[in-house]
Amino acid sequence: MTVALLNPLVTRLSPPPIPAVQAWGKSYDGSLGPLIDLSQAVPGYPPHPDMLRWLGEAASSLTYTNYGAIEGEAALREAYAAHVSELYGAEIAGGNIHITSGCNQAFICAVMAVAAAGDTVLMSNPFYFNHETTLSMLGIKTGFIVCDSANGFVPTVNAVERALTPGVRAIALVTPNNPTGAVYPPAQLKAIFDVCRKIGLWLILDETYRDFLPNDFGAPHGLLREEGWQENLIQLYSFSKSFCIPGHRLGALTASENVVEEIAKIMDNLQICAPRAAQGAVARALPALVQWRAGNRLEIEARARALSEVMTDLDGWKLEAMGAYFAFIRHPFEDRSSTEVAEHLAKKAGILSIPGEYFGAKHSQFLRFAFANADAETIRQLRGRMVDISL
Amino acid sequence: MTVALLNPLVTRLSPPPIPAVQAWGKSYDGSLGPLIDLSQAVPGYPPHPDMLRWLGEAASSLTYTNYGAIEGEAALREAYAAHVSELYGAEIAGGNIHITSGCNQAFICAVMAVAAAGDTVLMSNPFYFNHETTLSMLGIKTGFIVCDSANGFVPTVNAVERALTPGVRAIALVTPNNPTGAVYPPAQLKAIFDVCRKIGLWLILDETYRDFLPNDFGAPHGLLREEGWQENLIQLYSFSKSFCIPGHRLGALTASENVVEEIAKIMDNLQICAPRAAQGAVARALPALVQWRAGNRLEIEARARALSEVMTDLDGWKLEAMGAYFAFIRHPFEDRSSTEVAEHLAKKAGILSIPGEYFGAKHSQFLRFAFANADAETIRQLRGRMVDISL
Repeated sequence: MTVALLNPLVTRLSPPPIPAVQAWGKSYDGSLGPLIDLSQAVPGYPPHPDMLRWLGEAASSLTYTNYGAIEGEAALREAYAAHVSELYGAEIAGGNIHITSGCNQAFICAVMAVAAAGDTVLMSNPFYFNHETTLSMLGIKTGFIVCDSANGFVPTVNAVERALTPGVRAIALVTPNNPTGAVYPPAQLKAIFDVCRKIGLWLILDETYRDFLPNDFGAPHGLLREEGWQENLIQLYSFSKSFCIPGHRLGALTASENVVEEIAKIMDNLQICAPRAAQGAVARALPALVQWRAGNRLEIEARARALSEVMTDLDGWKLEAMGAYFAFIRHPFEDRSSTEVAEHLAKKAGILSIPGEYFGAKHSQFLRFAFANADAETIRQLRGRMVDISL
Repeated sequence: MTVALLNPLVTRLSPPPIPAVQAWGKSYDGSLGPLIDLSQAVPGYPPHPDMLRWLGEAASSLTYTNYGAIEGEAALREAYAAHVSELYGAEIAGGNIHITSGCNQAFICAVMAVAAAGDTVLMSNPFYFNHETTLSMLGIKTGFIVCDSANGFVPTVNAVERALTPGVRAIALVTPNNPTGAVYPPAQLKAIFDVCRKIGLWLILDETYRDFLPNDFGAPHGLLREEGWQENLIQLYSFSKSFCIPGHRLGALTASENVVEEIAKIMDNLQICAPRAAQGAVARALPALVQWRAGNRLEIEARARALSEVMTDLDGWKLEAMGAYFAFIRHPFEDRSSTEVAEHLAKKAGILSIPGEYFGAKHSQFLRFAFANADAETIRQLRGRMVDISL
């Protein structure tokens, strides 16, 4: 008898962080009021009633029971292409869109399309942990672009250039950023995109949180208007957050038709096609719920203001960066790790947050607050729970 | 300017085969009656009305809008574990189950759990094409266990031993087989499993089509009753075929709790969790629709008998193997490739089948018929369409 081995690229990964954090919340005794969950990004308000109705109609229909097109339902690809075209002032067609089962899947598809085991992909540091574990699991090497709190955690061209090594195939960035909340200025994205074009790298741009930018922000960037953007850009998006339906697992990629065809090969192996019924429902919701989503942006802005006010007044705590959905907060316990602080905050104060070190070993002085999960009134309760906490 | 490169492991893959085959059908002029689609495996009958109702109820419910457990809904894991326990006379718990978004995803999860780029996984030859492309895309080497038509395409222990090389981590088999329909006898599976246990390999056993075995077949095999099966076995299953809901994308793995935990790390990166609403609906359907599924088995048996009768009477065509869902049929055009024959059959006779060479280069004399897609009356029409076909 010989023992059958597991893949060390997988066994050496830490267990998924969100369930570990949520487990801490179960030890909170409720004495300060209900648990305030600012861990996994989930807007606290429900989906629009029409969204639920359309999901139900689609799921109970014979129309969506059979296999669908690998690339996604034509209706959703067209509706989303129209939305992207309008938002960015660009000309995006349905053929530029590939629907995926959530944005983590969009990321792994994009990465597999451009890199194999042994290649290198650069990420910001701090990074979104699933991007790092996805690359590690595939045997793709990771390199890091150091993002400084002094610069609001926005990557500079210098930092990008310092991270470049032979074997780099792509740069993966997230804006508005997870975990810091940093909103990368359009000019900065253009400068980094120019580096990619000059030396032949892909820019994989995850914009999961763009719908939570202020209503007057305008286009998040101008890259999709650049001549020949398709040669270097793959843009990622999630329907989960704006429509409050993460359980239905829907995301999208925007890329050249050629890249979409390559990603169809990957998706065919990953799961043939994204679940269909929710695609049909979101194709209806995308144009219909524009006003509802604009209202939600105002709500999220109110939540951001509430957190700013709370944080001005909390000795030792410092809001280092905030935007769209997340805040990256420096905690006052210099000799304690972010994991110890987050666990303590969960168990004693009933506040769930993600330890900074989950986003890179150097960020142990920070916690990530998904502030947009909670309404302003709930956020104002943070002060009372955090003000006297000792460790 | 430098061109950004794509991953050659992906670009060198052929485009997904099913859409290419379906495109041939669009050139059929309908003169012999409606197209008979025996390509992608999709039972022609609809889901049970209660299934559609439960899908609709779940999808329109707030309950399933948020993220769910990575491993799957507890209700479905428990219901499926009970089903597997009963079918195999084994003791399987919910903790042994991981829910995936379809069985292709179950396969890639299983493979990634046990092999990295550079390792080797053995498959039968002929093979299921998505298994081969999945491994190639991951940079995992493939080795092949030659399955002889003289042996009904069932792999022998000798053939397994001949395929072994250093670096083999797992053997991936499909029973009832796709493409040949061969049903691997329990004793044969046990003999191959013993080889795996002796030298420390994983057996990844895809049983997507087991629900179409005859009602009196009994347990498909006894491996889940073997002491310590968890050390070497990962079993795969699909809810798509038996419940006629492939568009909802649901599959499952059965493995040790340890392997389930490793696969949760992979799934977290692939898509966080399988779509939830359909999980809730299938958890209700699994115990409730037992009789309906038994009736479908009888229906599929009638379809198999109809195909056997058709094939006894068609000069030059030979039914080389058949079982559960598929038939592997030798065509009479010795100097023509299976792709030419399948394309001709689609365009001229309105019969969609998959060319044998899609399942391995040596199988150009065969076509795969997913006979269980069509009712017996439709299958009997094949004779008139095939009898005089020339090429």
